[in-house]
Amino acid sequence: MSNRQKRFFLSEEEIPTQWYNIQADMVNKPLPPLNPATRQALKTEDLFPIFAEELCRQELDQEHAWIPIPEEVREMYKYYRSTPLVRAYGLEKALDTPAHIYFKNESVSPVGSHKLNSALPQAYYCKQQGITNVTTETGAGQWGTALSYAAKAFGLEAAVYQVKISYNQKPYRRSIMQTYGAQVTASPSMSTRAGKDILTREPNNQGSLGTAISEAIELALNTPNCRYTLGSVLSHVTLHQTIIGLEAEKQMEMAGEYPDIVIGCFGGGSNFGGISFPFMRHNILEGKQTRFIAAEPDSCPKLTRGIFQYDFGDVAGYTPLLPMFTLGHDFMPANIHAGGLRYHGAGVIVSQLLKDKYMEAMDIPQLETFDAGILFAQSEGLIPAPESCHAIAAAIREAKHCKETGEEKVILFNLSGHGLIDIPAYDQYLSGSLQNFQVTDEQVKANISKLDQII
Amino acid sequence: MSNRQKRFFLSEEEIPTQWYNIQADMVNKPLPPLNPATRQALKTEDLFPIFAEELCRQELDQEHAWIPIPEEVREMYKYYRSTPLVRAYGLEKALDTPAHIYFKNESVSPVGSHKLNSALPQAYYCKQQGITNVTTETGAGQWGTALSYAAKAFGLEAAVYQVKISYNQKPYRRSIMQTYGAQVTASPSMSTRAGKDILTREPNNQGSLGTAISEAIELALNTPNCRYTLGSVLSHVTLHQTIIGLEAEKQMEMAGEYPDIVIGCFGGGSNFGGISFPFMRHNILEGKQTRFIAAEPDSCPKLTRGIFQYDFGDVAGYTPLLPMFTLGHDFMPANIHAGGLRYHGAGVIVSQLLKDKYMEAMDIPQLETFDAGILFAQSEGLIPAPESCHAIAAAIREAKHCKETGEEKVILFNLSGHGLIDIPAYDQYLSGSLQNFQVTDEQVKANISKLDQII
Repeated sequence: MSNRQKRFFLSEEEIPTQWYNIQADMVNKPLPPLNPATRQALKTEDLFPIFAEELCRQELDQEHAWIPIPEEVREMYKYYRSTPLVRAYGLEKALDTPAHIYFKNESVSPVGSHKLNSALPQAYYCKQQGITNVTTETGAGQWGTALSYAAKAFGLEAAVYQVKISYNQKPYRRSIMQTYGAQVTASPSMSTRAGKDILTREPNNQGSLGTAISEAIELALNTPNCRYTLGSVLSHVTLHQTIIGLEAEKQMEMAGEYPDIVIGCFGGGSNFGGISFPFMRHNILEGKQTRFIAAEPDSCPKLTRGIFQYDFGDVAGYTPLLPMFTLGHDFMPANIHAGGLRYHGAGVIVSQLLKDKYMEAMDIPQLETFDAGILFAQSEGLIPAPESCHAIAAAIREAKHCKETGEEKVILFNLSGHGLIDIPAYDQYLSGSLQNFQVTDEQVKANISKLDQII
Repeated sequence: MSNRQKRFFLSEEEIPTQWYNIQADMVNKPLPPLNPATRQALKTEDLFPIFAEELCRQELDQEHAWIPIPEEVREMYKYYRSTPLVRAYGLEKALDTPAHIYFKNESVSPVGSHKLNSALPQAYYCKQQGITNVTTETGAGQWGTALSYAAKAFGLEAAVYQVKISYNQKPYRRSIMQTYGAQVTASPSMSTRAGKDILTREPNNQGSLGTAISEAIELALNTPNCRYTLGSVLSHVTLHQTIIGLEAEKQMEMAGEYPDIVIGCFGGGSNFGGISFPFMRHNILEGKQTRFIAAEPDSCPKLTRGIFQYDFGDVAGYTPLLPMFTLGHDFMPANIHAGGLRYHGAGVIVSQLLKDKYMEAMDIPQLETFDAGILFAQSEGLIPAPESCHAIAAAIREAKHCKETGEEKVILFNLSGHGLIDIPAYDQYLSGSLQNFQVTDEQVKANISKLDQII
């Protein structure tokens, strides 16, 4: 027992110098996003008013497999990277499985999740372009927290629209963003046209991610030197998150193993793509047979039960039309604790890869994810975010399968964040009042059928 | 800028194999604790009914400078150790100081603080002795959290008495302990004589650390195969915490520097002693001139304004009489957010070392500590525990002094824990409603004068 290394770190020199853009290596490239007005393929310049220009270029880049990480971003990565790759001996023992379980611990980021990996470059590219202010929306708060710190690090002002119900019910997140110096506004607010319209009609509206997005975009468009930022779904966000898998690849090598199965929880796809794509590259280019599993909530099963179709990225229909797996842009998922996974669609890259069977998906009930989270907390010490509990639950399913078959498979999953701000969810679980929220086939069908009108 | 290494880690082989017991090297040994009934020096065996035997031996050991870390404990340390030594370039820049500031980041422990360093060996030695159950008390909750996880790791049942006001006002902590599998009871409770006595007299009593200690000890004494555990003050706890300074010593060597000033916040002394003693050893044995600064709240200034005197360790007067700096065992500190520093006395080792001028103390107002915490959060990304903010504030004072004098001093402080469960404190600070609570000379004098009757 005593000579088993548990954690693997890279030296600062070994931190990757490039992100991996899987679009360049994909056999079938993602279909283009469409301008909703013209139904024409979106051009890079169309996005310039909303995002920093370099991010727009990254978004649609299908040529360059490797994108250099700016030195200034890499310097900031050193505040917490490499994150440890951990051999989960405690969990293996608790499961009595022959599987070798590893996890990449992104929860050690100062803001508590992988979100900072993209917030830093997004803030940096804005700064480079002479932009002084950034906006965004946040639901559960992980992304808003990351952007608030990244903005401070690069000397930008950040304005975050936090969904009102979360603003009031989760004051910890709001205070953390304010501690980093961000201005946090409950959405809907009177600071935008979109917010005013809603509040005029419905003064007690508790907000939604869709409304908060609209407010953040509107503020960005109407403020000089201001741009909007987004924490998942988009291809440039996933690109930045590949730092996770690129590090993990080197660290698995240090451990003398290569994963048979790679698992990430799935909201918009950036965390899943981040850990998966650097390994998937070897499937695409060298015919490796690693399995990639996206773990989604069964209450929001766009990958397992949605359809592949052009759809809007937001509820209100302001975004470009994206070719993706979707439950329909007005699908309202149940109020599960894994707020980061409550999204109706999937990023365009993952959607194409799922269609082409380079990856698979697994839908998991809420109670099973918390069973998994508690077992993980007790055997590995770390209390995982409700989102990350989905990845753990999928890993546990696979490890139990190994126990049945006696296979010594190597399983790697991404621990995307810690659950210390989500403790009330654990409290609810422990007190027996937590529920499952599986959607019915009727709900899915009814919602998807509306999509016929779109394109 | 780009070749500056920011974080220093030890490999698992380099994690220390022994703790450092400064008692063996001290010129003037600590005076013996006294049996309160007989006023005779306490013998090791006197403590056996309360603590695991090996811990009792460590408590009074003035002979052995190096105590081997059991292999099983060292294996558990590998879950989070070495913790990083971090060069605080961001903070240095924010202060525009020529000082080199380093911090040891104990907040990366799975339970969020240094407390686990002692919880693990305490649980281990209990397990070794055939003990099945452990008890403790917790106020703010850091120690209760650490013990809950350590007990689970070594297969023990843990019962934690949490001060009732904290149980109700800080439900996050309670839920974390329950997530680790501990039984958490609000104190005073009906489960002990001590609790019943209080509740009979005063049904709405909100509890205190003193009452919770009494309940935890009583439960330990009345339960078969059960022992009590304590998270600070005692010498064996400080011994375990020297892992912090021993690692830091090796890591400072990797950084090519040696500290001129070492700083820890001060509650009972285990975190301060943990980072300081391995460096102080070189002052004692080799005449090095490193300064050691204990940073305490000015609302509970036992080191800066208390007296050196035999006193009880608890409010009720159940513990042995300890030779220490104290404000009197019934001193009631203001309700500052740094709950872990609200203790009337200091451990016997630190008390003797302060008396012998091997170290110094600094008292800091609450608002200055949060000023420091916010600056640290914005420049280094990490939100520190209110306790740790005291160490940061002291480091900032010294770094500002360096700016005035132009000295390039090397400052090392211990970041004992993160503040993610203490966010309401930051919220109060940001909303301008946080106060200072300096005690008056009259209060100190009145309280200390009662001590004359003790011995």
